[in-house]
Amino acid sequence: MTVNLAELARRFQGKVRGDADVVIEGVASLQTAGPRDIAYISDRKYLSQLAGTKAGAVILAETDVAHYSGSALIVANPHLCFAQVADLLHPTPGFRPGVHPTAVVSTAAKVAATAWIGPHAVVEADAMIGEGVYIGAGCYVGAHAMIGSKTRLVAHVVIGERCVAGNDCLFHPGAVIGSDGFGFAKDGEQWQKVPQLGRVVIGDKVEVGANTTVDRGALNDTVIGDGVKLDNQIQIAHNVRIGENTAIAACVGIAGSTIIGKRCTLGGQAGVTGHLEIVDDVHVTAGSLVTSSITQPGVYSSSLKAEPVEKWRRNAARLHHLDEIVQRLAKLEERLQQHFEEQKN
Amino acid sequence: MTVNLAELARRFQGKVRGDADVVIEGVASLQTAGPRDIAYISDRKYLSQLAGTKAGAVILAETDVAHYSGSALIVANPHLCFAQVADLLHPTPGFRPGVHPTAVVSTAAKVAATAWIGPHAVVEADAMIGEGVYIGAGCYVGAHAMIGSKTRLVAHVVIGERCVAGNDCLFHPGAVIGSDGFGFAKDGEQWQKVPQLGRVVIGDKVEVGANTTVDRGALNDTVIGDGVKLDNQIQIAHNVRIGENTAIAACVGIAGSTIIGKRCTLGGQAGVTGHLEIVDDVHVTAGSLVTSSITQPGVYSSSLKAEPVEKWRRNAARLHHLDEIVQRLAKLEERLQQHFEEQKN
Amino acid sequence: MTVNLAELARRFQGKVRGDADVVIEGVASLQTAGPRDIAYISDRKYLSQLAGTKAGAVILAETDVAHYSGSALIVANPHLCFAQVADLLHPTPGFRPGVHPTAVVSTAAKVAATAWIGPHAVVEADAMIGEGVYIGAGCYVGAHAMIGSKTRLVAHVVIGERCVAGNDCLFHPGAVIGSDGFGFAKDGEQWQKVPQLGRVVIGDKVEVGANTTVDRGALNDTVIGDGVKLDNQIQIAHNVRIGENTAIAACVGIAGSTIIGKRCTLGGQAGVTGHLEIVDDVHVTAGSLVTSSITQPGVYSSSLKAEPVEKWRRNAARLHHLDEIVQRLAKLEERLQQHFEEQKN
Repeated sequence: MTVNLAELARRFQGKVRGDADVVIEGVASLQTAGPRDIAYISDRKYLSQLAGTKAGAVILAETDVAHYSGSALIVANPHLCFAQVADLLHPTPGFRPGVHPTAVVSTAAKVAATAWIGPHAVVEADAMIGEGVYIGAGCYVGAHAMIGSKTRLVAHVVIGERCVAGNDCLFHPGAVIGSDGFGFAKDGEQWQKVPQLGRVVIGDKVEVGANTTVDRGALNDTVIGDGVKLDNQIQIAHNVRIGENTAIAACVGIAGSTIIGKRCTLGGQAGVTGHLEIVDDVHVTAGSLVTSSITQPGVYSSSLKAEPVEKWRRNAARLHHLDEIVQRLAKLEERLQQHFEEQKN
Repeated sequence: MTVNLAELARRFQGKVRGDADVVIEGVASLQTAGPRDIAYISDRKYLSQLAGTKAGAVILAETDVAHYSGSALIVANPHLCFAQVADLLHPTPGFRPGVHPTAVVSTAAKVAATAWIGPHAVVEADAMIGEGVYIGAGCYVGAHAMIGSKTRLVAHVVIGERCVAGNDCLFHPGAVIGSDGFGFAKDGEQWQKVPQLGRVVIGDKVEVGANTTVDRGALNDTVIGDGVKLDNQIQIAHNVRIGENTAIAACVGIAGSTIIGKRCTLGGQAGVTGHLEIVDDVHVTAGSLVTSSITQPGVYSSSLKAEPVEKWRRNAARLHHLDEIVQRLAKLEERLQQHFEEQKN
Repeated sequence: MTVNLAELARRFQGKVRGDADVVIEGVASLQTAGPRDIAYISDRKYLSQLAGTKAGAVILAETDVAHYSGSALIVANPHLCFAQVADLLHPTPGFRPGVHPTAVVSTAAKVAATAWIGPHAVVEADAMIGEGVYIGAGCYVGAHAMIGSKTRLVAHVVIGERCVAGNDCLFHPGAVIGSDGFGFAKDGEQWQKVPQLGRVVIGDKVEVGANTTVDRGALNDTVIGDGVKLDNQIQIAHNVRIGENTAIAACVGIAGSTIIGKRCTLGGQAGVTGHLEIVDDVHVTAGSLVTSSITQPGVYSSSLKAEPVEKWRRNAARLHHLDEIVQRLAKLEERLQQHFEEQKN
C-alpha cells in the first residue's frame, strides 16, 4: 500500500509539516529508513538520530518538531500513531479460505466458509470456527471448542475441548489453551487427580504468546478478559480470572484461582500465588512475587538487582542473619537508653 | 453415569445424612450446583455458601455437618472424596482403538491392538505402544521409545528416542521428553557439545504438564519416579532423579544431576541448582532458590513478598549495603562497650 | 565405530598410559562402563570411583594419573576430550535424503537434494533448505525462511517466515523462532498492536533448547551470534542481540532490545530487563535479575538461598523494614557521638 503524508495526517488526526505529498510505503527505524519510509522517535534519547535519518518523513510530537528539519507528521501520541501507520502499511497477509487437503476436519465441526484450515491441522467434532478465522499449520482445535471471527492461530497452537476464544485474537506457536489444571487430593502418600471439568474462556482482541499455557478451570472456568495481552511462556493456572486490557510480560506464572484486575501490567518473570485478588491498575515489576492480595492501585515490587558477586554474597549472608542483627540493634538501643537514664539520675 | 447418595457412601466409605436416594449425575461448585450435582467445601471459609447452594448433596467432614441442613455425604477427607466422585462421574472419555489414516506408524513399531494413534501422530521404528494407550493428534514417539499401558498423550507431545513412560501416565500438550541435556565442554572460546546418550525413564501414574521439558541424561538416565506430578512449563535437566509422589508446581527449574526425594513439593517458579541432594519430605515455597543440598525434611524458603515500590526500593537499596550497615552496628557495640568499661574504671 | 586407545591419543593430542591396543566402542560413566567403554573423571571428588571401574580405559589429566592403575588416555582437558571422543563414537545418526510423502513442501521452496523433510513437516513458499539439513517430524518452516547447511530441527520446531538459521545448528522440539515481539502502544485503556516486521537471524553452530522462544524484531532484527547455546524454555524478546559463544541456561528471560556480549553465561532462571547492554565475559548466577547495564566483565548475582522457612520469614520480615532499621542505627550513632562529645566538654 502507498499513501502520502497528507493522507496519513487525515487518517490519524495529525498535522503535516513540510511536504504533504511525500509518498510513504513502509515504516522503519530512523537509521534504516529510506525516502519512502516513515520513522518515529521511540524515546527522546534518540533525538540526535533525527539529523542523520534518510526517512521520507518522521512522526513527531509537537514538542520535538524543532529537532528535525524534514517532513513530519505531528501527532499527540507518536508511538500510537506509528503503530497505526505500521498496521495500515504492513497488514497481516490475507489468505484464501478453504481447508488444506492434509487437514483433518470432523464432519461434525462447523467451519465458516471464509475460514482457512491449514496443513496438518485437526478440528474435532462440534468445534465452531468463525468467519475469517485462520487456523495455521499443525494446530489442534478440540471438540466443542469455539473460535471467534477473524481470530488467527499462527501454527502449532492447541485449543482444548470446549474452550472458547473470542474475535480478533492472535495465538502464537506452541500456545496451549485448556490443559488440565494442577489439581490433586492427597490419598495417603499418593496424589488422586481431581478431574478438571471447566473451560478456558478468552475474550476478544486477546493476544497469546508462543508457548504460553492456560489451564482449564477445575469446576468453573478460567477467564481471560477482552483486550488482554499475554507474552511468551506465561503460565495461567486453573480458575484464574484476568481483567480487560491487562498486559503480562514473558515468563510470568499465576497460580490457581487468583483474580487479576483490569489494566494491570505484570513485568517479566513475576509470579502471583494462588487465591489472591489484585485490583485494577496494579503494576508489578519484573521478577517480583506477589503473595497476598493487593487492594490499592499502584506499583509493587520485590525485585533485587544483580551486583558484583563478592559484594552481593557479603550482603546476602548478612540478610540470612538480619533478625539477629536487629535484635543486637534493639539491645544496644536499650542499653544506651538505660545508660542515659542512669546518668540523668 | 448416575448414582444415588447411598451408592457413593458405599463406594467411598462415607455416611449419608438426609436423603440416601438423591440421584447424583455430576460434581459442581457450591454456587453452580443443581439438584443432580454433588458439591463440597474446599475451604472452611466458604461454609457460609452452604446456606445458598442448590446442590443435591454436599460432601462434608463430620465437623462441618452442623453448618448444612440438606443431604450430605460425610467422609473423613472431603477433598479426596470429591476427587474420587468426580473421577467416577466424569471419567476420561473412552476411544475406539486403531490408527488414524494420517498417522505415520513405522512397520517396525509394536502397537497394541487396544491403542489409539491419532491424526498426524508419528511413531518411529521399534517404539512400543502398550495396551489402551492414547496417542493424541500430532504426537511424536521416537525410535525404541516405550509407552506403558493406559498412558495418554493428549496432543502435540514429543517422547524422544529410547525414552520410557510407565503405565497410567498423562502427558499434556507441548510436553517434550528426551530433549538433549545442556552439556558442553569449553574448547577455547567455543563450546564443544557433549553427546547426550542417556534416556528419560518415567514411572507409573506420572502426570506431565503442558510445555514441560525433561532432558535425557548425558550418560546415565534422567529418572522420574512413580506418582510424580509435574505442572506446566517445568524444566528438568539431564540426570535429575525425582522421587516417588513428589509434586512440582509450574515454572520450576531443576538443574542437572540433582536428586529430589520422595513426597516433596516445590512451589511455582522455584529453582534448584545442579548436583544437589534433597531428602524426602522437603517442601520449597514459591519462587525460592535452593542452592545447596537439604538434609532435613521441612519447609524451605527464600521468597520475598512484593510491596509498594517506593517502600521496597528504600529497603532493597539498604540491602545492597547491609554488610557495611552491620559493620557500623558492630563498631557502635564496641564503642559503647568500651565506654561502659571506661566508666566502670 | 571402533577405535583403539592409540588412535584416540593420535586424534585428540593425548598420551597413552598402559595398553594402547585396547579397543573402545563407546563412552560411559565410571560406574556403568564395561571393558569396551572409555570413561572420565568429571570432578575430582569422584577420584575414588576409579578403583572400581570396569572401563577399558579412562581419560585423565596428568595430575590424576597416579590415582588409577588401568589403561589411560592422558590429555590436557579431560572434559573436552571426553566430549570429542563421545562425538566420534556416538555420532548423530545419518539419514536418507528426501521428502516424506506426508510432508507439505511448497513448490516454490528451494530444498537441497541432500536434505530430509520429515513426516507432517511443512515448508512454505520461497523457504530455502540447505545441504544436509534435517527437518524432523511436524516442523514448520515459514515463507522465505532460510535454514543453513547441516542444521537439524529435531521435531515440532517452528521457524517463522523470513527468519534465518545458520549452518550446523541444532533446534530441539517445541522451539519457536520468529513469534511476534510483545509490542503495543497505549490507546486509551486499550493496547494497539505494533506490527513486528523484523526477523530472527541466527548464526552458525547455535543450539536452541526445547520450548525456547525467540521473538522477531519490531523493525530491525533479533540476532543470535555464532556458537551461542540456549538451553530449554528460554525467552528472548524482540531486538535482543546475543554475542558469540554466549551460553544461557534454562528458563532465562531477556527483555526487549537488550544486548548481551560474547562469552557470557547466564544461570538458570536469571532475568535481564530491557534496553540494557552487557559487555563480553559477564556471568550471571542462577535466579539473578539484571536491571541495569553491566560495563565490566565479572560475575554478578542477586540470588538468595532458601533456608528453613521459620528462620527465613523472620529475616525477610526484617528486610521489609530495613530502611527504618538503618535509620534507628543512624540515630543511635548520632546520640552516642553527641554523648561522647558532651562528656569531653
